[in-house]
Amino acid sequence: MSRRYVITFGCPDRVGIVAGIATFLAELGGMIVEAAYHTDHDTGWFFTRQVINADTVPIGVDELRARFGEVAGGLAVDGDWRITDTAQRRRVVILVSREGHCLYDILGRVASGELDVDVPAVVGNHPDLAGITEAHGIPFHHVPFPTGDQEAKAEAFASVRELVDAHDPHAIVLARFMQIVPAWLCTAWAGRALNIHHSFLPSFVGARPYHQAHRRGVKLIGATCHYVTPDLDAGPIVDQDVIRVGHADSITDMVRRGRDIEKVVLARSLRWHLEDRILVHGNKTVIL
Amino acid sequence: MSRRYVITFGCPDRVGIVAGIATFLAELGGMIVEAAYHTDHDTGWFFTRQVINADTVPIGVDELRARFGEVAGGLAVDGDWRITDTAQRRRVVILVSREGHCLYDILGRVASGELDVDVPAVVGNHPDLAGITEAHGIPFHHVPFPTGDQEAKAEAFASVRELVDAHDPHAIVLARFMQIVPAWLCTAWAGRALNIHHSFLPSFVGARPYHQAHRRGVKLIGATCHYVTPDLDAGPIVDQDVIRVGHADSITDMVRRGRDIEKVVLARSLRWHLEDRILVHGNKTVIL
Amino acid sequence: MSRRYVITFGCPDRVGIVAGIATFLAELGGMIVEAAYHTDHDTGWFFTRQVINADTVPIGVDELRARFGEVAGGLAVDGDWRITDTAQRRRVVILVSREGHCLYDILGRVASGELDVDVPAVVGNHPDLAGITEAHGIPFHHVPFPTGDQEAKAEAFASVRELVDAHDPHAIVLARFMQIVPAWLCTAWAGRALNIHHSFLPSFVGARPYHQAHRRGVKLIGATCHYVTPDLDAGPIVDQDVIRVGHADSITDMVRRGRDIEKVVLARSLRWHLEDRILVHGNKTVIL
Amino acid sequence: MSRRYVITFGCPDRVGIVAGIATFLAELGGMIVEAAYHTDHDTGWFFTRQVINADTVPIGVDELRARFGEVAGGLAVDGDWRITDTAQRRRVVILVSREGHCLYDILGRVASGELDVDVPAVVGNHPDLAGITEAHGIPFHHVPFPTGDQEAKAEAFASVRELVDAHDPHAIVLARFMQIVPAWLCTAWAGRALNIHHSFLPSFVGARPYHQAHRRGVKLIGATCHYVTPDLDAGPIVDQDVIRVGHADSITDMVRRGRDIEKVVLARSLRWHLEDRILVHGNKTVIL
Repeated sequence: MSRRYVITFGCPDRVGIVAGIATFLAELGGMIVEAAYHTDHDTGWFFTRQVINADTVPIGVDELRARFGEVAGGLAVDGDWRITDTAQRRRVVILVSREGHCLYDILGRVASGELDVDVPAVVGNHPDLAGITEAHGIPFHHVPFPTGDQEAKAEAFASVRELVDAHDPHAIVLARFMQIVPAWLCTAWAGRALNIHHSFLPSFVGARPYHQAHRRGVKLIGATCHYVTPDLDAGPIVDQDVIRVGHADSITDMVRRGRDIEKVVLARSLRWHLEDRILVHGNKTVIL
Repeated sequence: MSRRYVITFGCPDRVGIVAGIATFLAELGGMIVEAAYHTDHDTGWFFTRQVINADTVPIGVDELRARFGEVAGGLAVDGDWRITDTAQRRRVVILVSREGHCLYDILGRVASGELDVDVPAVVGNHPDLAGITEAHGIPFHHVPFPTGDQEAKAEAFASVRELVDAHDPHAIVLARFMQIVPAWLCTAWAGRALNIHHSFLPSFVGARPYHQAHRRGVKLIGATCHYVTPDLDAGPIVDQDVIRVGHADSITDMVRRGRDIEKVVLARSLRWHLEDRILVHGNKTVIL
Repeated sequence: MSRRYVITFGCPDRVGIVAGIATFLAELGGMIVEAAYHTDHDTGWFFTRQVINADTVPIGVDELRARFGEVAGGLAVDGDWRITDTAQRRRVVILVSREGHCLYDILGRVASGELDVDVPAVVGNHPDLAGITEAHGIPFHHVPFPTGDQEAKAEAFASVRELVDAHDPHAIVLARFMQIVPAWLCTAWAGRALNIHHSFLPSFVGARPYHQAHRRGVKLIGATCHYVTPDLDAGPIVDQDVIRVGHADSITDMVRRGRDIEKVVLARSLRWHLEDRILVHGNKTVIL
Repeated sequence: MSRRYVITFGCPDRVGIVAGIATFLAELGGMIVEAAYHTDHDTGWFFTRQVINADTVPIGVDELRARFGEVAGGLAVDGDWRITDTAQRRRVVILVSREGHCLYDILGRVASGELDVDVPAVVGNHPDLAGITEAHGIPFHHVPFPTGDQEAKAEAFASVRELVDAHDPHAIVLARFMQIVPAWLCTAWAGRALNIHHSFLPSFVGARPYHQAHRRGVKLIGATCHYVTPDLDAGPIVDQDVIRVGHADSITDMVRRGRDIEKVVLARSLRWHLEDRILVHGNKTVIL
């Protein structure tokens, strides 16, 4: 795929925003390859994502940003925008515990070229997944989390943060990472940390959701990918999916069958995140 | 379809139950048309449903019941069994409020012969759906529910019960009936009253679930059919389904799109109930 | 919902189209309520649908059309555009045979206000569904189709056409109408006639698709809504859906269960059609 | 999971079959852990699968087979039965070409213990997937297939057969193996060779199904797992699934998104096959 600039922009809706952006791009000669718009009628907020063929833009990305900033400023004082360049390769750091299916799935997508990113590090609070990781030529960092000891846990999280932030990643993926991220770290990683929760949220928040689902006798189980926020399992939902279960499915069956949903929901969400398709507003996502 | 006897049986599992039932049926000459078994390994409970071609059974249904009772008693002291005869037409009474889509859907299935039952009465706490009901030649009973006045509400429920019980129905369908059924009536109708709740339970219990879903920003909305119990929206789940929604769906869109799921989930559950496919055990259902 | 103007436009893609349309609307003061764009990279064709709050447009719809025509002409010589006004109520004529579930479903949606249209006539080649139709206060026209006699069939189709065209309908819905529409009539109704076919096309074209599906042993059955064209069951697909079946499902079960999919797929497609969301290009649809 | 015996049995239906089998098992003291029955009313064929807790059976598996054979012979002269022992570990050989996602997915499930089998060999007509395979400690065999030369192709298939049959596998998985298996080899591997086809069969048989799907403008794409037979893509279907696509999905998107369906459908089918859940009758499967 040729080089692209991806523009995302959100601001209070009013007449003339689309015209302003489109005219700016047309005057530059920028060919719009993909465009999506959404207006949230509850909040009166406007959202757009536009993909431009970089070859048709006669200026560099820095000058594009500077000029677009002027246009955006003219359209709204409190607008929120970003321009990314697909020529810049994305970095993803993955956090794991013991369950390897999501890690294995992502690494397979990277290895096959389906997901065109660098994974410079995997960090685990258990050493179990070092083998899989290193077989893909990726450094694995084991940071033990002592149970019970809050101070030691805080130190462990400080180590995790250091290991992650060293790569300045575009996405931090909690691929069945089973530690609760403290509020200060949620804030530091706001809008970049994606968690996969193994239930159809808001059902079955917290620990052992398949056990909760089995006890309640639900007929569908699901998985939810959301941005990590200080409220446990309550961040903006990116994607969800479900699979039918029945009385014959034991907890073990649910765990096994749910994994297939977890993998797909996480992979889809990560792709959208890396393609700048997700605009967060309040506690909700707009996927453009 | 020719006449059938439907046997359902549940008891603590042990060696020889299937042999006992099957030998009894084989000695009678009864042709098994359909059979399903399930053992719940958590509770050690055995469940079966067997459908017999009535023409192959040389005795009447009452004698069949008497003889099967002896077999069942020999297999377990605390077994739970029932034999129904498809020659006996089923009666369904429907409770409604203002929203007509579920009522309309069920009446259409009855009118077309898809659902082969009698609907001797529809009872509503609002008069809105009298027209649809009477156009199908079914008596509509309006029982007003005064808001706030608990005593008057209790009286209204007593009237509803009388109107319903007069028909000794095999199923009482709460087709978007928006009053909370009191505990004494849940008990009286135990195992016969099916409610359709417009969310994917246990998410969004109680009032205005689509509003709750919209606020949370979920990416799928659903509907749940469950048996009515004194715990609000917490009875044994019969069936559930979901439909994908997105940021562009307003609450109005969710309400409209959710209706299609509600109708299908309720119709499917009602059919299973009337075919004696649902065995309730604790707070869960086994669908055979 | 307040009054809206819906603009759809398709033309060969080039730089400046979005700017041209958006600037025209912004200068008018027109508030864009909903907007969608698509570029088909195989054919190089651009598509857009925009919904404008009519109250914000200071000119009438005829003048809007005249002025937009000039803008559109400036953007492309071979563009294809349309502006509709939600203040003008839509008319839908329905063709049926013997199976009533799709008819019943549509009439229920109209009666409840979910589908805000007029149904001035239902035409059937069998009289079976006259009762349902007339119960909704809609005239039913029975046009018998003699089997085998081609000349009489052509005359019957001429009658059907006359009955339909008398209402100049925005949509002609073949709600399980089991006669093959002749090419000349497909042409006359091009882009307005929606058929529901009871299979997941292109599988099981033609007669008795559920029988074909049962024979093949598929594990999912489906339904397809498409625009009617002279090639049988080969017109542009609007929507499709499927439902899981298994070895225990007889043909009768498949017919019954498939109906729920047919109804939903047809209702969804009809809504999109009436909201001007469907842009046909070649033999494919773009749903905006 | 403790050791189990899995009995599958099919024969013309008549009164007394269930009683015969169940009485035999009860007299042995065999605890039935799971049981399923199906009667196909079109062909009058009876099918059952029963899982017995091996610890409750006082005789060895060979004697169980001998005794069950007598019972089965008494129930039907043309019955078809099998008893497998979960203590015997299953062997799966995988055939591949260039696309690695299905191979990668299966190997991941094996490595994590989700799929409890041995994979003694992977055979490819291209060398591309040797690396992935060998990273899992599994021998990879490259058998080149010269294009065009029929004689050389026949020799290549003879080599493949030899490599596969050396392991006497319970399942031969064509994990996106892009060569048409000759009739003589389909016959040799009858009932053991599973192919994943990247379309919702019977739509889009043969080469490049996603291209065919894109051209037709379908709104769902799918995948089908079937037993390999001499008729290309026409063998008994084991499982199918679909995913929604839209006008914005290019062929590349369809290929990518379809892979997720292919992986899940193949994994599910393989698991059913290895658990002896699939009974083939004519060109259809019964999944018990």
